[in-house]
Amino acid sequence: MSRNECRGQIVCLGLGPGDPELMSVKADRILRNARHVAFFRKRGHPGKARQLVTGMLHEQVTEYPMEYPITTEIPASDPRYVAQLSEFYRGWQARLTELAREKEVIVLCEGDPFFYGSFMHLYIRLRDAGEVPVQVLPGIPGMVGCWHATGIPVTWGDDAMSVLPATLPDLQLRQHMECSDALVIMKVGRHLGRIRSLLAERGTLDRAWLVINGTMEDQQVMPLRDAPERCPYFAIVIVHGQGRRPADDMPVDAR
Amino acid sequence: MSRNECRGQIVCLGLGPGDPELMSVKADRILRNARHVAFFRKRGHPGKARQLVTGMLHEQVTEYPMEYPITTEIPASDPRYVAQLSEFYRGWQARLTELAREKEVIVLCEGDPFFYGSFMHLYIRLRDAGEVPVQVLPGIPGMVGCWHATGIPVTWGDDAMSVLPATLPDLQLRQHMECSDALVIMKVGRHLGRIRSLLAERGTLDRAWLVINGTMEDQQVMPLRDAPERCPYFAIVIVHGQGRRPADDMPVDAR
Repeated sequence: MSRNECRGQIVCLGLGPGDPELMSVKADRILRNARHVAFFRKRGHPGKARQLVTGMLHEQVTEYPMEYPITTEIPASDPRYVAQLSEFYRGWQARLTELAREKEVIVLCEGDPFFYGSFMHLYIRLRDAGEVPVQVLPGIPGMVGCWHATGIPVTWGDDAMSVLPATLPDLQLRQHMECSDALVIMKVGRHLGRIRSLLAERGTLDRAWLVINGTMEDQQVMPLRDAPERCPYFAIVIVHGQGRRPADDMPVDAR
Repeated sequence: MSRNECRGQIVCLGLGPGDPELMSVKADRILRNARHVAFFRKRGHPGKARQLVTGMLHEQVTEYPMEYPITTEIPASDPRYVAQLSEFYRGWQARLTELAREKEVIVLCEGDPFFYGSFMHLYIRLRDAGEVPVQVLPGIPGMVGCWHATGIPVTWGDDAMSVLPATLPDLQLRQHMECSDALVIMKVGRHLGRIRSLLAERGTLDRAWLVINGTMEDQQVMPLRDAPERCPYFAIVIVHGQGRRPADDMPVDAR
């Protein structure tokens, strides 16, 4: 069957930072009407995206948990890890394609799917294969929810902002800390101590915040210097830009 | 009257990138019920935020256009410019505070208000004065709408991303181009030629996109090398991260 004969499609919804009320009007409507819903999860876990939509799915929904292969005992650099993941994505590409020939399949993705999202790996394959239509709807990225959790604007006027995975080497993190006004450091987890040291070295530790589960019910916000030794993988560090302040900045040519 | 006796509040809504369907469920509901709605505009213009909500306001709404003082004939470095703006913000701080003692006042802001938003100048003043409650709701930033308009994921795996106002000097732009994988260059306008040259020098011009009015009806998306000589102030340049590609990246410790 060619794409022209295909009656279904795949739609990936960006669900936003955690509070279901921060989902877009469009995503909310599509989600509540969905009959086929797929989402990633780690074996033995409910899945972050699935948890976010608790109580919102149609009573006749069929769910497709896409369970990551267990790879924790194989390092990511091992070819077997790559092979297992390849196989995993290939399998779900085939499964979703088959479903989408007749049906609309909704894929759940926390935050914004195009911003460090897991679905992109499937998206690229599905798009390049061109067998079924696939579209992706934006969501409020997790980092946006996190800077709102601090109650402080993140960028002003001509501020430059860097978004950095905490997994990057010190050298690269230092380069960004030097040339940026605002910083968002993602995937902090076990890198917390190192990030704290680098910011202290730069003299910006006192302006840094740690946000865990921003906009969710169990949201935690604290100055980074007061943070405990450990934090979750998805915790985010924010250093707000100082920019040009009220009354000395306004984009006159802007509107 | 103290804050405890205050019955109203000020709520600033992040309206998202342009498509009204991309507004959050919460912002949409608050907006449709609002009776007092304020928004920035330049004299003689409808205002971008106000345009975005066309047809969505309650029939009994009262509108408060906050018109920027005419300052185009005074350079931004002139003390008179600063004084005019200060006076403008002080005036609207007083006006909104007075309204919010009894009423709920909704302030419209395109994109995400804490991300280069105009309302932050008023927010800081209102928050610090502490006379009336003020809250800000996140929205999908304009840049997120723009990278979705290109249909290409913007960051993968360990990609670092820089968000840069095109108004920054060459030196700082070059530093970011050197240490980042993904780039978002905002407020391109009259800097288009310069940005193009800097990206060409870096060898990334062929991967750069220009997006004008992302997610809006008149959206335009094109490779930057094919762009005309001029573009609007709010146009955005996107260089997507290449990251680690499908099947060789998956955050096993992520969920």
